[in-house]
This record gives sequence, structure tokens and C-alpha cells, in this order.
Amino acid sequence: MSERIPRLETPVGFGELVGYRLTQWRHDEAELELVLEPRHLNRSNVPHGGVIATLIDTACGFAGCYSADPGKRRRAVTLSLNTSYIGQAAADTTLIAKARRTGGGQTVFFARCDLLDGEGRLIATGEGSFKYLRSEEAKAPR
Amino acid sequence: MSERIPRLETPVGFGELVGYRLTQWRHDEAELELVLEPRHLNRSNVPHGGVIATLIDTACGFAGCYSADPGKRRRAVTLSLNTSYIGQAAADTTLIAKARRTGGGQTVFFARCDLLDGEGRLIATGEGSFKYLRSEEAKAPR
Amino acid sequence: MSERIPRLETPVGFGELVGYRLTQWRHDEAELELVLEPRHLNRSNVPHGGVIATLIDTACGFAGCYSADPGKRRRAVTLSLNTSYIGQAAADTTLIAKARRTGGGQTVFFARCDLLDGEGRLIATGEGSFKYLRSEEAKAPR
Amino acid sequence: MSERIPRLETPVGFGELVGYRLTQWRHDEAELELVLEPRHLNRSNVPHGGVIATLIDTACGFAGCYSADPGKRRRAVTLSLNTSYIGQAAADTTLIAKARRTGGGQTVFFARCDLLDGEGRLIATGEGSFKYLRSEEAKAPR
Repeated sequence: MSERIPRLETPVGFGELVGYRLTQWRHDEAELELVLEPRHLNRSNVPHGGVIATLIDTACGFAGCYSADPGKRRRAVTLSLNTSYIGQAAADTTLIAKARRTGGGQTVFFARCDLLDGEGRLIATGEGSFKYLRSEEAKAPR
Repeated sequence: MSERIPRLETPVGFGELVGYRLTQWRHDEAELELVLEPRHLNRSNVPHGGVIATLIDTACGFAGCYSADPGKRRRAVTLSLNTSYIGQAAADTTLIAKARRTGGGQTVFFARCDLLDGEGRLIATGEGSFKYLRSEEAKAPR
Repeated sequence: MSERIPRLETPVGFGELVGYRLTQWRHDEAELELVLEPRHLNRSNVPHGGVIATLIDTACGFAGCYSADPGKRRRAVTLSLNTSYIGQAAADTTLIAKARRTGGGQTVFFARCDLLDGEGRLIATGEGSFKYLRSEEAKAPR
Repeated sequence: MSERIPRLETPVGFGELVGYRLTQWRHDEAELELVLEPRHLNRSNVPHGGVIATLIDTACGFAGCYSADPGKRRRAVTLSLNTSYIGQAAADTTLIAKARRTGGGQTVFFARCDLLDGEGRLIATGEGSFKYLRSEEAKAPR
């Protein structure tokens, strides 16, 4: 059901630094995976809250921007993001962020995410609102 | 009013990877700084939403855990975190997260954070709830 | 699968004022219904954001406090609540809040809620964290 | 510094039901007051979480919609709202919601609110994002 993730979506910048991987991307849905390493942990040896918020923000953003036509993919900026830190992941598991667009229109969309560990336990949930960039903003050379 | 940040609080793990620095820490308050570099940006060349959530989460967490007696500092885990992405920072500015504990008791605390750029513009705000770790949890070897 | 809602949970105070009804309550789940009337609307003739937050907060709170033994039901206070306003309900529909406890332990729990209109459209989502009251707090005469 | 609140902003619908009063309204700021009565409380005899979310949502919404020219006032819908329940108010105090627009542009704005009791104690904080209605939407008969 998924497609091969196009080269365009190879992580850059912070995504590359954190090291997550887009593993599913289709209409209204996206999944990311992150194999945990010591650099993702905090002083208490569990994943840093910022890692978890990063995965939820990113997966939600992708979920609202898919198009079957790679030339029509959209870009969006986060307006607000909420994260609930429900369980603690082991230091050496793989985190999987499963996000779904829940609604919205041409200007704003909403998405929600479950973050699971490698054994399917719920580690965090989150939801966010996002604003689509107009195509001229998204296409501008950066 | 601030103190030199003790060696103990040198960033580790994800804090070291991201590269933020604790610049102020006192009763109910904390400040972090992050000099932005390309590794903090997203595909649109602005700070990744996850970087901003990381700074807000971390600064809020520190704000509730200060003690003048380094031996009595507390540890906490985030319960929930909300971030509002208000403005866009330039790619080469310094982000400053100013957090303040707003209330709570012995089990849970609340904190709120303003994230500014190097020119004092408001880039994001956030608020979170946190649960103190009992001392036996915090002291356990990990 | 549901049970008759015990007399104890007849709405009081603000619940009575708003007029919602607990229609399902079982382990980790709760549902509320509200038949919309003009007193629930705002100046734009759609349900006031506060009505929607009220339903989500209440349904989430119930979802974490169920016990098959009415004598062992718990009480909780909200720590944080997030609401995403996804769609607009008609002025004369019935709102249905479906909440589920997503995790937590003896001190804190988390819950998430979908708010639907009478035709099953998603009007809002939300998630919250809650702190259980100790039994002596919950039993105290008020 | 404040102005007399125009007749137009007399509460209607849910605002009238809850009974809050707009006491300050100026550029980027708004204040609401609510004299607590038994109908605002929950089973534990403290203000219902929904009352508090309602005040924060409403005050934030007003804060972003002020214009010195009453004919140019804007309308907005809430996109997302977060509330932190920091302290417990007495059953018979007056709640005061002080909101400030923190940023945004022509499409979306952000606001933040402190909710105090009659003695100035912080009961809750919150922040939200809002979308302005286009004038044709706001003017349409409803």
C-alpha cells in the first residue's frame, strides 16, 4: 500500500541529525521510524521529550502534504502541536510514529499521531494544526 | 542572579546532539540558548518544529527542578507539552528559551516558556505539565 | 456492552447547566451526548468552543475513572487539555464525545476524545492528562 | 485605557448561559470576568474544567479581534486551544481571564491567557491559535 519514498524526501537538516526515516506515505497518512541510540536519550536514559515531539510533528506534517503526483506535494508549517507523554520507551527500541490527517481544508489542516515502541506499546500521542504554504512560498529558492 | 551552571548539567545525549546551552537557572526559572546551524533547519530552511519543541520542553523542565542545593535538585518527566509556532526565525539567529514554573506541588508542576530570536522577536510559546520523579527513581543507576 | 448510568452520575452544576448526558461508561471508555440548542452556540451560530472543550474534558475524565464496582470509582482533576477544532457542527445536531483512556498509572492518566456530530462527522479531537484524587480527597464532604 | 464595551458584544448563546462579562477590550488584549456560582462547579465543588476552558478560549478570541473602529471588528474561529489547570479556585470567587494576542498575521493569530481568581492567584493558563473569518463569512446572516 505504501510507495517507495522519493529521493526528494530524504531527510535534511534536523531530520538528518535526528535520523528518522519516512517509511509510509500515502493519502492522509504517514509513518516515521527512528532506531533509538544514545544520542536520542536524556539524562534519565529514556528518549528526550524533544525527540518524541519531533517525530510527532514531522509525521503529522507529512500526513497532510501527500499527493500521488510528486509535483503537487504541498508544504506546511506547524501552527500548534500538543504531545502527551504516556509511557516510557526502552533506550534501545525503535520508535514508530503513525500519523493521520483528521481534517481541514485548503488553508489549514489537522493531524493526529500515535507513537509506538518496537513492541507496539503506546509511548506518546499528539495532535497538531498546520498551515499550508502557498505554492509560491514553497517553490521559492531557499 | 544566575549562577554558573554546574558541570552536572552539561548536556548529554539529545541535548548534546542539538547543542543547546543552559544559560540561566534559578528558583522557578531557566533559560536555554541555541545558536542555529544548518543541522537545526527543515526543508524550508527555518528551524524544525522539533527543535523548537525540544527547547521549550527542556527549558520548562529545568524551571521546575532548580534547587540552590545541587544535592537536592529534582528530576521530572514531561506529562504534556503544547507549542504555538508564532513567528519564523531566521536560519542564522540564536534562539533563547525563557521558561518559568507557573505552579504545582510536590507531585506535578507546570511551566510556560517564551522562545525568542536574537533580536527579541517572539518565535514560539509553550506550556507543559511535568511529574517529579521520586528520589529513588532519579538516583537509580541507568 | 454499556451499563445503565448510575444515579450518582446524574449531571450536577456545570454539567447540568450545559445539559450533556453520559451515555456509555465502561472500563477505559466513556461517551457523552449533547443535543445542541441555541444556548450552546456563539455569535456565529455554531457551537461555542467552550462547549466542545467541556465535552472533551468531561468525557476524558470519565474514561479514566470507571470501575465496575461503583464504590471504587475514582475522581480526577484535569492537569492539561488540548482541543483541535476540526469541523463545524450544524446548530441543531447532537454532539457525541467518545473518549478512551490511553495510558497512565496510579497517579496520572491520559485520555483522548473524538467529538462527532449526529451524522458521524469529526468536529473536534482532544487529549488530556488527569491526576487521580486520593480517596480521602474524593470522599471528603464538600 | 479600556473602553465601554459596545452593546454588540453583550453575551449571547453560550456566553449568556455561562454568564461571563467582557470587562476590558483593546488592541491585542481582552479581559473577561465570571462571578462563580454553583452552576459553574463540578461534583467536587470546584469550577468545572469546561468553564475554565470556555473563559480562556473566549478571552483569547476577543484579544485578536479588537479594532478601534467597531465596524472593522473581526471574527475568528478557534483552531486549537490548550489549557493548563494549575490551581484550584474557591467555589465563590470571581474568575478573571486576561488574554493577549501574541502574534500572527492576516489569516491566523495566536493568543495566550492567564486565569486568576479574585485574590490574584493563578488558576489556569492557556494558549490558542485562531483563524480569522473572511468578512463575507462574518457578515453572512446566520
